[in-house]
Amino acid sequence: MKIPAPVYHPSFNITRASHVVMTVTDLAASKHFYTEVVGLIVSEEDSGTVYLRGLEEACHHSLVLKQANDEPVCERIGMRVFTEGDLDKAAEFYEAAGLPTKWVSVHGQGRTLHVTDPAGVPLEFCATMTVMPRNVTSFAKFKGGSAHRLDHYQLLVPDVQAECDFYMSQGFRMSEYIVADHVEEFAGVFLQRKGNPHDLVLFNGSGPRIHHFAYTSIDAGTLMRACDVAGIFGFGSKVERGPGRHGPGHAQFVYFRDPDGHRVELFTTHYQIMDIECEPIRWDANNQLRKEIWGLPAQRSWVEEATKFPGVAVASPTLKEPAMTLERFLAARG
Amino acid sequence: MKIPAPVYHPSFNITRASHVVMTVTDLAASKHFYTEVVGLIVSEEDSGTVYLRGLEEACHHSLVLKQANDEPVCERIGMRVFTEGDLDKAAEFYEAAGLPTKWVSVHGQGRTLHVTDPAGVPLEFCATMTVMPRNVTSFAKFKGGSAHRLDHYQLLVPDVQAECDFYMSQGFRMSEYIVADHVEEFAGVFLQRKGNPHDLVLFNGSGPRIHHFAYTSIDAGTLMRACDVAGIFGFGSKVERGPGRHGPGHAQFVYFRDPDGHRVELFTTHYQIMDIECEPIRWDANNQLRKEIWGLPAQRSWVEEATKFPGVAVASPTLKEPAMTLERFLAARG
Amino acid sequence: MKIPAPVYHPSFNITRASHVVMTVTDLAASKHFYTEVVGLIVSEEDSGTVYLRGLEEACHHSLVLKQANDEPVCERIGMRVFTEGDLDKAAEFYEAAGLPTKWVSVHGQGRTLHVTDPAGVPLEFCATMTVMPRNVTSFAKFKGGSAHRLDHYQLLVPDVQAECDFYMSQGFRMSEYIVADHVEEFAGVFLQRKGNPHDLVLFNGSGPRIHHFAYTSIDAGTLMRACDVAGIFGFGSKVERGPGRHGPGHAQFVYFRDPDGHRVELFTTHYQIMDIECEPIRWDANNQLRKEIWGLPAQRSWVEEATKFPGVAVASPTLKEPAMTLERFLAARG
Amino acid sequence: MKIPAPVYHPSFNITRASHVVMTVTDLAASKHFYTEVVGLIVSEEDSGTVYLRGLEEACHHSLVLKQANDEPVCERIGMRVFTEGDLDKAAEFYEAAGLPTKWVSVHGQGRTLHVTDPAGVPLEFCATMTVMPRNVTSFAKFKGGSAHRLDHYQLLVPDVQAECDFYMSQGFRMSEYIVADHVEEFAGVFLQRKGNPHDLVLFNGSGPRIHHFAYTSIDAGTLMRACDVAGIFGFGSKVERGPGRHGPGHAQFVYFRDPDGHRVELFTTHYQIMDIECEPIRWDANNQLRKEIWGLPAQRSWVEEATKFPGVAVASPTLKEPAMTLERFLAARG
Repeated sequence: MKIPAPVYHPSFNITRASHVVMTVTDLAASKHFYTEVVGLIVSEEDSGTVYLRGLEEACHHSLVLKQANDEPVCERIGMRVFTEGDLDKAAEFYEAAGLPTKWVSVHGQGRTLHVTDPAGVPLEFCATMTVMPRNVTSFAKFKGGSAHRLDHYQLLVPDVQAECDFYMSQGFRMSEYIVADHVEEFAGVFLQRKGNPHDLVLFNGSGPRIHHFAYTSIDAGTLMRACDVAGIFGFGSKVERGPGRHGPGHAQFVYFRDPDGHRVELFTTHYQIMDIECEPIRWDANNQLRKEIWGLPAQRSWVEEATKFPGVAVASPTLKEPAMTLERFLAARG
Repeated sequence: MKIPAPVYHPSFNITRASHVVMTVTDLAASKHFYTEVVGLIVSEEDSGTVYLRGLEEACHHSLVLKQANDEPVCERIGMRVFTEGDLDKAAEFYEAAGLPTKWVSVHGQGRTLHVTDPAGVPLEFCATMTVMPRNVTSFAKFKGGSAHRLDHYQLLVPDVQAECDFYMSQGFRMSEYIVADHVEEFAGVFLQRKGNPHDLVLFNGSGPRIHHFAYTSIDAGTLMRACDVAGIFGFGSKVERGPGRHGPGHAQFVYFRDPDGHRVELFTTHYQIMDIECEPIRWDANNQLRKEIWGLPAQRSWVEEATKFPGVAVASPTLKEPAMTLERFLAARG
Repeated sequence: MKIPAPVYHPSFNITRASHVVMTVTDLAASKHFYTEVVGLIVSEEDSGTVYLRGLEEACHHSLVLKQANDEPVCERIGMRVFTEGDLDKAAEFYEAAGLPTKWVSVHGQGRTLHVTDPAGVPLEFCATMTVMPRNVTSFAKFKGGSAHRLDHYQLLVPDVQAECDFYMSQGFRMSEYIVADHVEEFAGVFLQRKGNPHDLVLFNGSGPRIHHFAYTSIDAGTLMRACDVAGIFGFGSKVERGPGRHGPGHAQFVYFRDPDGHRVELFTTHYQIMDIECEPIRWDANNQLRKEIWGLPAQRSWVEEATKFPGVAVASPTLKEPAMTLERFLAARG
Repeated sequence: MKIPAPVYHPSFNITRASHVVMTVTDLAASKHFYTEVVGLIVSEEDSGTVYLRGLEEACHHSLVLKQANDEPVCERIGMRVFTEGDLDKAAEFYEAAGLPTKWVSVHGQGRTLHVTDPAGVPLEFCATMTVMPRNVTSFAKFKGGSAHRLDHYQLLVPDVQAECDFYMSQGFRMSEYIVADHVEEFAGVFLQRKGNPHDLVLFNGSGPRIHHFAYTSIDAGTLMRACDVAGIFGFGSKVERGPGRHGPGHAQFVYFRDPDGHRVELFTTHYQIMDIECEPIRWDANNQLRKEIWGLPAQRSWVEEATKFPGVAVASPTLKEPAMTLERFLAARG
């Protein structure tokens, strides 16, 4: 395990996690879930696609739902770069790395670059989107979890070190990391560009798969409201974990499975981290902070299940350390 | 199963659940837990006893902790009656029922009557306590869960119908009840005197034992704060269930086990119920409300473990319908 | 000034403040305000009347809006009694006092008794209403301030002592009272039946007029949401006072003027008060609690304006002590 | 009025508003206020200085209180730059502009550059501070307003356009701006570096003076708690404005005057703004958003009073448009 040296002046400027494209088997059901329970706003829709954004977002979309022809997958995750020039430099970076790049046209986005990372994750970069009205003060439209903005993704990858090295070479900085219990290897790393704990989280596991994407919410009461509303609409069993409090990142969270099993998190209370002197926080079995976590472990489904990328083979992780699950915890306790 | 007819003009006037007396093995540890995590205020203490009350309570105590000589138990639960006259009539009622009664002197309380109910639960009644300052506006003293006032008890009893009949004959009214899945019997009943959903909850189970006592808190954020503070002080594993939302009663809740395993609930958002035309709400397997519950079932410990009363034999329930547990739920799902 | 002796066993049992009947000049505008901003649910409506209730209320209505033929007024305030027998005894009480009584039929209510109190306030008593579904878990219907239940009224009366004596003779108990600054007279009294600080508040002022009626809400965030939503719908200038924290009663509050100028309060965090040993809390110029109040005084409109009862003459108060207003406070400060 | 073109690649990289240095007449009283009411943590202190930081801050200080020898002033506001290299380039920038620069040593900070802006505001830049533990999970230490991190400053300046031009030439970007009612001039501009609505706010007024510095808090309930605790500790009259909701920036806010009259804001619910396509939002008399504001205007003291910088002459603004005050509003209404 080696924490890569941060690259303070990367060749191109990624500003933040931007959007995610998911395919779903029943577009109407998914739209209902994301608008009523999660609280997203529909920016635009047609017979095969729904474009959604959070209440504070002025971008055209942070979540795109597409009618699936096959099993539901994550088509692509999106990152914003600052300028058009950064986009060109991103293309150069990926080409120099011998990775696939392709310029494409995407509805609601400016010039868009498709790339694939070394683990096989399909990414896209753009510098701009069509501007939409912010609904941050449209209080009468706030529903369910009142999702305000997309914040980050979590990926399961078979080699956290390699993937971490790759993203940190693009300027991502590490805020926190988890060390495996029995070997000095990364169990997970939290990488950020926008100055809060994470834009991209990488966890050891069969992958590449997307574990979840996360939206900010308002406060603990609103997280609870999201669950309450989920119950009303028949999604009570889709509240997979929480409400609770994270160790790394320290956020209050709740996780839902959408009608196709894609996982979305609502959370609050991240902290700001941008100063150069801040070292990544280490979480290991001896960390005092770890001892302060409350509640039960996540159930097995949360630990193991995730959404595939289309046509991307899933490999087993090199680090063989099974994460604690609720099932294992209860069994061990007898 | 038969819902008893309500007695609107009982022979004596019980006003509310009042206080609980628990023995504990380490008085200092328990005091720390109840003041820092639950947020109670110490009214008075000596070498063997700590008297605590909630932030809004003007009574001398709603929780009495005593140094245990033996295994920790619940010595007694307390009910308030309105006047001294009601106290005399309570004595007459219990005597007429052939149940033990005894006048005693209790520190911080007015004239006090000890009785035992037909299930063997040791109760005490009093009409007054020594008046203490309310801390409802002592905002700088609010800690952890900011417990405001004792609200109710939950008992496990082997014969819910018999116990329910007994308490309703004293004027308790039923707000909600749960029917067993496979037989038309009470799995649980919610009884109240003070005009919100319950002062006394009776559940089918090995008993009599006290399952928990419950304090009101402020809001969802404060329930979460209680958990967060519990973690800080090493009680993270004592958050046994929640935060979540109840079916019956509809409250937001979280349950803690204290250092001796006694269970205390913090909750918010009960409703008012005092009008004569309101019928008890039935919860059964077909109830729409039941389908709207979200999250995972309670773990086995929450379902099965409870605190004994001293010297009171525990009997198995007549209704043999095991409640769903988290363990059973996960096993069934595979 | 004399605090009347409490009557613990009144001749009839008033259980709580129940409902209020207001006339309004534009029924649609008022319905919009009370459903979207306050968050009430429509129970029933016809061309001339809208019946509303709070989210947790199972009663048919707690607010009745009627099309005004003339200036908008408060037709009547309603109190619940426990049983039909209490209703008959209420009639006897008012008749014995030489006050007007009349049995009437009111939509959505059981047998109803109209009376007039000595100050001229039109009251009605009933023991039952048509039962409606509680919406306490209909989370997706929660709007604006999510008003949960009617809690109390505040009246301006020219002789607080006389009115207080009259209501306490019916079993109302005093929780708190305010003494005038320059003379030992009641500036205001807080009277309760249901076990929290007030069902009926009486303040010195030109009257009888109804100053406001108050609904419970969820938490501070929801009070703020009510204001935010009020702004969205063009009622921003109708947020007359708060959000803030009361002295007496200690509640978090916000006051709105409805489209006709009727005043409605949303509040949280009342305390329980039912024990017989609790003495009323005195608020005077020297009270430490009074020194702990924060924020600016209420504006003059809040202090002086109120809704008339139809055809009831308004008399000036005998106690001539003008309440502090924001205008006077700012002027004095220069 | 002219909105300057944004400079996307400024010569040096300011990352965020960092810290403020205030002198106070009674260090103990101010420390009490900022720790108990605002909720800051003491990083270090000696006989003449107290260094404070917010709960989530890992920096040595975001507020420095110094014993005043004379009238209490704001000694300096601080900005963070990303790297040591940026610091050198900042010096070059200010020197090239003919403005004073000076390298100094400051306790708890890395290499520090003192500069003065064209309006006379004393600034300092540094790239690093001594690292301290974050208290973001030290829940048992959360007090009063639970201030989490310094977010922004607001300055009153006599020429908003000139000051705005100067800061935007350093890479600040405009998120929102207010146009005077009667002339097309800036009444205020909101400038940001860190990706939320503001690091530096400039308002038209006699200046340069610092109007307030602002810390993030948790939620509406915590803003209310800060006020409640302020009242407890005798600072009830120091709650100068709010809790309320801002127009520009849309935050929930409350403003306090500290014991010396320095003004501190606690707020929540800012939005993220970093995408290049987002244009500044215009607020003028015709803006729909402006019509959605609720509540009363700020009192005159909030509008007019501010803290001086030591030895810096205060000039009257060129734009003569008095802001609305509560006093003027009430007088106009009669």
